[in-house]
Amino acid sequence: MSNGLKSSLRKRDQKRGLPPGTVLYVGKERDQKPRMQLLAYDADSVSETELPSLDALPAEGRPGEIRWLNVDGLSDVALLENLGRRFDVHALTLEDVANTQQRPKYDLFDHYAFVTFKMLRMDPDNPKAIIAEHVGLVLEKDLVLTFQEAPGDVFDFVRERIRSGQGRIRGLKADYLVFALLDAVIDGYFSVLESLGERISDLDAELLGRKPSPKYLREIHGLKQQIIFIRRCAWPLRELVNSIQKMRTELFDEKTDVYFRDLYDHCVQVIDNVETYRDLVASLTDLYVSIAGNRMNEIMKVLTIIATLFIPLTFVAGVYGMNFQDMPELRLPWAYPAVLLLMLAMVAGMLYFFRRKGWI
Amino acid sequence: MSNGLKSSLRKRDQKRGLPPGTVLYVGKERDQKPRMQLLAYDADSVSETELPSLDALPAEGRPGEIRWLNVDGLSDVALLENLGRRFDVHALTLEDVANTQQRPKYDLFDHYAFVTFKMLRMDPDNPKAIIAEHVGLVLEKDLVLTFQEAPGDVFDFVRERIRSGQGRIRGLKADYLVFALLDAVIDGYFSVLESLGERISDLDAELLGRKPSPKYLREIHGLKQQIIFIRRCAWPLRELVNSIQKMRTELFDEKTDVYFRDLYDHCVQVIDNVETYRDLVASLTDLYVSIAGNRMNEIMKVLTIIATLFIPLTFVAGVYGMNFQDMPELRLPWAYPAVLLLMLAMVAGMLYFFRRKGWI
Amino acid sequence: MSNGLKSSLRKRDQKRGLPPGTVLYVGKERDQKPRMQLLAYDADSVSETELPSLDALPAEGRPGEIRWLNVDGLSDVALLENLGRRFDVHALTLEDVANTQQRPKYDLFDHYAFVTFKMLRMDPDNPKAIIAEHVGLVLEKDLVLTFQEAPGDVFDFVRERIRSGQGRIRGLKADYLVFALLDAVIDGYFSVLESLGERISDLDAELLGRKPSPKYLREIHGLKQQIIFIRRCAWPLRELVNSIQKMRTELFDEKTDVYFRDLYDHCVQVIDNVETYRDLVASLTDLYVSIAGNRMNEIMKVLTIIATLFIPLTFVAGVYGMNFQDMPELRLPWAYPAVLLLMLAMVAGMLYFFRRKGWI
Amino acid sequence: MSNGLKSSLRKRDQKRGLPPGTVLYVGKERDQKPRMQLLAYDADSVSETELPSLDALPAEGRPGEIRWLNVDGLSDVALLENLGRRFDVHALTLEDVANTQQRPKYDLFDHYAFVTFKMLRMDPDNPKAIIAEHVGLVLEKDLVLTFQEAPGDVFDFVRERIRSGQGRIRGLKADYLVFALLDAVIDGYFSVLESLGERISDLDAELLGRKPSPKYLREIHGLKQQIIFIRRCAWPLRELVNSIQKMRTELFDEKTDVYFRDLYDHCVQVIDNVETYRDLVASLTDLYVSIAGNRMNEIMKVLTIIATLFIPLTFVAGVYGMNFQDMPELRLPWAYPAVLLLMLAMVAGMLYFFRRKGWI
Amino acid sequence: MSNGLKSSLRKRDQKRGLPPGTVLYVGKERDQKPRMQLLAYDADSVSETELPSLDALPAEGRPGEIRWLNVDGLSDVALLENLGRRFDVHALTLEDVANTQQRPKYDLFDHYAFVTFKMLRMDPDNPKAIIAEHVGLVLEKDLVLTFQEAPGDVFDFVRERIRSGQGRIRGLKADYLVFALLDAVIDGYFSVLESLGERISDLDAELLGRKPSPKYLREIHGLKQQIIFIRRCAWPLRELVNSIQKMRTELFDEKTDVYFRDLYDHCVQVIDNVETYRDLVASLTDLYVSIAGNRMNEIMKVLTIIATLFIPLTFVAGVYGMNFQDMPELRLPWAYPAVLLLMLAMVAGMLYFFRRKGWI
Repeated sequence: MSNGLKSSLRKRDQKRGLPPGTVLYVGKERDQKPRMQLLAYDADSVSETELPSLDALPAEGRPGEIRWLNVDGLSDVALLENLGRRFDVHALTLEDVANTQQRPKYDLFDHYAFVTFKMLRMDPDNPKAIIAEHVGLVLEKDLVLTFQEAPGDVFDFVRERIRSGQGRIRGLKADYLVFALLDAVIDGYFSVLESLGERISDLDAELLGRKPSPKYLREIHGLKQQIIFIRRCAWPLRELVNSIQKMRTELFDEKTDVYFRDLYDHCVQVIDNVETYRDLVASLTDLYVSIAGNRMNEIMKVLTIIATLFIPLTFVAGVYGMNFQDMPELRLPWAYPAVLLLMLAMVAGMLYFFRRKGWI
Repeated sequence: MSNGLKSSLRKRDQKRGLPPGTVLYVGKERDQKPRMQLLAYDADSVSETELPSLDALPAEGRPGEIRWLNVDGLSDVALLENLGRRFDVHALTLEDVANTQQRPKYDLFDHYAFVTFKMLRMDPDNPKAIIAEHVGLVLEKDLVLTFQEAPGDVFDFVRERIRSGQGRIRGLKADYLVFALLDAVIDGYFSVLESLGERISDLDAELLGRKPSPKYLREIHGLKQQIIFIRRCAWPLRELVNSIQKMRTELFDEKTDVYFRDLYDHCVQVIDNVETYRDLVASLTDLYVSIAGNRMNEIMKVLTIIATLFIPLTFVAGVYGMNFQDMPELRLPWAYPAVLLLMLAMVAGMLYFFRRKGWI
Repeated sequence: MSNGLKSSLRKRDQKRGLPPGTVLYVGKERDQKPRMQLLAYDADSVSETELPSLDALPAEGRPGEIRWLNVDGLSDVALLENLGRRFDVHALTLEDVANTQQRPKYDLFDHYAFVTFKMLRMDPDNPKAIIAEHVGLVLEKDLVLTFQEAPGDVFDFVRERIRSGQGRIRGLKADYLVFALLDAVIDGYFSVLESLGERISDLDAELLGRKPSPKYLREIHGLKQQIIFIRRCAWPLRELVNSIQKMRTELFDEKTDVYFRDLYDHCVQVIDNVETYRDLVASLTDLYVSIAGNRMNEIMKVLTIIATLFIPLTFVAGVYGMNFQDMPELRLPWAYPAVLLLMLAMVAGMLYFFRRKGWI
Repeated sequence: MSNGLKSSLRKRDQKRGLPPGTVLYVGKERDQKPRMQLLAYDADSVSETELPSLDALPAEGRPGEIRWLNVDGLSDVALLENLGRRFDVHALTLEDVANTQQRPKYDLFDHYAFVTFKMLRMDPDNPKAIIAEHVGLVLEKDLVLTFQEAPGDVFDFVRERIRSGQGRIRGLKADYLVFALLDAVIDGYFSVLESLGERISDLDAELLGRKPSPKYLREIHGLKQQIIFIRRCAWPLRELVNSIQKMRTELFDEKTDVYFRDLYDHCVQVIDNVETYRDLVASLTDLYVSIAGNRMNEIMKVLTIIATLFIPLTFVAGVYGMNFQDMPELRLPWAYPAVLLLMLAMVAGMLYFFRRKGWI
Repeated sequence: MSNGLKSSLRKRDQKRGLPPGTVLYVGKERDQKPRMQLLAYDADSVSETELPSLDALPAEGRPGEIRWLNVDGLSDVALLENLGRRFDVHALTLEDVANTQQRPKYDLFDHYAFVTFKMLRMDPDNPKAIIAEHVGLVLEKDLVLTFQEAPGDVFDFVRERIRSGQGRIRGLKADYLVFALLDAVIDGYFSVLESLGERISDLDAELLGRKPSPKYLREIHGLKQQIIFIRRCAWPLRELVNSIQKMRTELFDEKTDVYFRDLYDHCVQVIDNVETYRDLVASLTDLYVSIAGNRMNEIMKVLTIIATLFIPLTFVAGVYGMNFQDMPELRLPWAYPAVLLLMLAMVAGMLYFFRRKGWI
């Protein structure tokens, strides 16, 4: 987790001194070549093409056809600039697409709208790791461009719906596709939150049931870092969806208004959950600290009881182990049992004292 | 409690990939068939009917008659969709009705208003558990639809008032019924808060009176979780009532304005109480930690006093237990009493030291 | 204190199921019959009457006369409803008057203004207890109605001024009387805060001077609860005074504007003080915890010094107390003094070590 | 410090029951008679007069002359009321002048503006004490009245500038004089903050360098109280300067706008510094607590090492000090050296264990 | 770090009593003479001149030429005043330029705009120290003046771009130069944040991997202070950039709007990161405290196990070391092995007890 945060700043420094608007890929080096998939559809037909290069992309779609071009991999700057020229995208937008540290935002240009955000999902290889991917999205008339850092995303459900024609997606315009993609992203947030929720719930059960181990602390610390991270992604996402609703443009039809309102509600719910988890984890931490303090008290009590019982007895034994020639008690026949009785009485007194203190 | 929070996220994942507007029951599986009750009334008459199926529902009510249809159980999706078609309810609304994780909200559509919220009440079987139920409410002209997860609610008082004709309810329109139902919901919040208040007050008394046990910590932890949960329900409820006041529609008559203003005041009061309880519980936690620290100090003091008194004495006894052949003191007849006196003097010195330190 | 908070919720439950607007006395049961006092005055004359019943109240005052009717005791619901009918007061207002848990608020009706708030004063019988009383106030033209839970209030100064004709009160209208009453209420807050301030200052002195006892913790806990309680009363009071300034009505003359502005300043000052006290008490708690930790450190140091000094010495004595037949040292004549010297050297080494650690 | 806070509430109670607008001196009793100084100047001339009584004040200044009348001492109520009548000042203003607990505020009346605030400076006799003085200021056309609790202020620099004619002050109107006075007040805040800053910096150095003593805790506690106090003075001061900018009146010339904007920036900077200090002191407290905890750990480690090394050895010695007749080992000639070797081996084992634990 | 905070207040006191608008250098004394560099460019040509004195500055630039005059060193007040007269800059602006404690702000005057801010960069000589420099910037038509405390800045990348003609800078106006400079400043913030991020990440790794040392605490404390400091610089910087966008003037062309919007996004991102780091460091502190507490528990456990095992055994040995003449056990031949067995049994019992407690 913290590595993710670290790397999210490390690469930015490469940009220092470059003129603003320079497109520079700022992200983890990935060696694979970018992949481009084109999904073109209208109410009646769907076609999917894997594009070997940008030249393979038809200049225009058929009338009424919606085209979704997804690019996996941001490291090929020339490709991005090519795309920018082809679809008339501003250099600052391309800069934001390539800069994987860019904060989520919504920007409106003359003939297109630009959205960038973080896509979250659980790492399939590590049930406790979150994969965050920077995604850029450009909406033009009948065209949606999406840019991802690497293959693998949360959009498969959307693709499936386009292919099968299920739901409204085939009958509506490109703005609805944008909504569907954002909705899939937020569903991804929910699924990440669900995983967090289960881990919090497990910690809760463990804390109340068994002895908490130091491993427990690290787990809580990791949860806190992940919650900090998700908050940082979710708050600007909410702003972003809000901006889409506020800064109206003809790219978004009035008919999709109700869907974006719904999306906004989901964003608020994500944030609600994150804040709730923050409070719950804080409460767990408090509880852990108190329980650890209790255990300390218990340990100290055992030590104190043992020491308080035996140290005085040992002293008495020590006294009668002294080698003075003139110790009259030593010669009395009943002295030994008497001393043993005295010791017993001391123990009884101590135990009474402990009981009154409420220690045993 | 935490189970509630957990499950509130777990089921949502089933929805991933479904097109928005798909009605899917997201909640605890409940096997019972939905129950439908129709309560129709005007100023002069009341009729109550248990509907076996939707077909038994008359197409229209008599003129001036208010009809309240209550549905217990959200798992029968076909029924919901049927109802949606019959009363012209948007698919997104039905989705929110069926999604028990939906955040409380108020939405205005062309010919109806939709409200969803959480209904809280104490579990009759467990005096410390809170039952939270997702409720959806649709207000159309002369018609109110309510959807609940399961039988059992806080609306019985409202039903009773309709039956008996007590108060204004029979003389006013459907908007007043909505107010009366929301008012009953908020009364439920107050009754839950009252129970929390008593538990806080009991903890307070226990903490000041007796020795706090670890059980105490768990009780506080549980209270914190419940307060976090209620906050999460109450804040959006306030927003919701505020929205009803702000986003006016002809469905709400001006005459009920004063009642919704009152309702809003009650919501604010609920939140006031929740925040106060949060502060009180935080103060209790601080106090507990300090008291536990005090107890630790006390235990350490006893240990230190015992050890400090006897360890030096034991050493002295040890010295005269050594077996050197040439220890002249051992042969002096007054040596033994002298050593005992020396020990007494050491004890006296220690006790003086402790008293000056304020330990005894 | 916590009992007050507890009871403030307990009784509300009785209201569940009653139609909104039902007047129900929600407060501590008080057996005494309500008392009604009428104070009528104009610039030239004052008359005070104890009313045996509502019938004794003249229908109208003389022209230009201001009438202030004070009711002590809210348990006689019939009386309240009677008054409501007589002065045309809305049922919801009467409900708020009788509901002692009602949050402070300001409401404007057609021909009257309604204010409800908490009146605070120190308990004359217990220098650390705060008495909070629910007060309702109705302002009509030339008429002020006040409703209190029980006899005893902070209004005596106002009555005295009316009687003596001191200040502006006799020359101005009923709105100025309302101002004077609210001003008296806020003076009551200041006097409660002054008492808190002294207790905080005493705690501060005690903490810095003497050894803090566990009693200290309870005192701080009690202060926190009272500060939480006063905050909860004072913030809505400020809102209320602000609303009076904002929601202007002809009931309030422009000439009293400057007085309500002044009142608002006083409310802000109350809140300022409460927040300052909160911070001060938090700082005291931190200090207490640190001082307790310091004491623990000191105790541990004493224990460690004693144990570290004597445990090794006791071991050496133990070695020469062993009964092996073949221990050559035991027979050397200078062995005993040598061992004693060795022990002294060990003590010296330890003391040097402790001094270097800065422990002694 | 806390005494200051205490007294700031104590005296207010004397006011209870007096009609609003009663001028009552609420502050520390000071026996000296009020002093009045008149400073009259225009672009060409300056005259300074110590006024023995109000009668000595000329009715009007010369045309174009600015007059600044400073009153030291608020206890002579008759004088205040006299001044009020003479310069037509509202009774509520005089009340605020005399009430040293009044919160900083800005009020605009028909022909004058009223400002009241706290003047802070370090006590020349105690390098850690802050002197806070209540100051009232009335601005009329060509006239400034200032009221202070006691002689000694931060205005000497302003007086000097008027006398010497340095800067713009002699060429501008009375509003610039008000600005110059407020600027001097804020410079006083900076000088107090500077002193706090040095103390925080010294604490920081002490904490990192030497062993923190309990004195340290009290110093931090005192700093916290002072920061709480300065915050309480500075925030309303900012509001006040903001109000002067917002609620424009002809008393303030447009030309001084830029100066008040500057003043506002300084207020913001004061608050910035206070908040920064708050955070720094909080961080110091955390660090102190952690360091104290570290010392505890170290002490415990020493104790544990000593006890763990010697307690088992002492036990072994004890075994061979037993007096059983039939202990064959005792008679073996090599037994004693063997036991000593065993003990050495035990010590070595322990040391190895401690090193693996990282304790030594 | 704290020294920086300290000095930032110390010098201000020198200003007390000077009339507002007095230009006084408030900063660290630096003996070097101010350096002036003039960079003049248009689309076709660039010229760089090191100015020996102000007289060497040509009165006007060539038409269409942008001139950037950078002054390193603020201690030569005469020079500043000279520049002020030459370029018609208000005395208050010069005061803000020279006052290195000035809070970041944006001010608009008749014919120029003034911006002041903090420039942050890592100290090249100390990888953990941040260098903060006060920079003032005046934008007039075709002219930019920058004032720095000392040589060395983050502007070299901008200079390089002007020289090489890379990017848009040579083709646009002076407002774009201002943007480029601010952009370089914010890139400096990112580079500082990156360094912080790495240190946080290193601390995180150290805490989870190895034993945390007290050095660790100091490192965290230093980080907290630096984060407090950066926050204090970054928040007003955001406000400042926002003001530039809001308070439009003809000095800023509409075409640079999109760049300042971008700049604002970067400011928000800086603040986002700072707040995230604050949360992460807080979480690290919590974790450290918990781990230290765990270590304490572990130490106590070892002590308790050792003491609890051996103290009772030592007592038993002590009993049979007593010298009573009549101790029948001592004479039994099997007594010694029996006692050894008893001791073994005691150890076994203890170990069982510890295991049940979960201590071993």
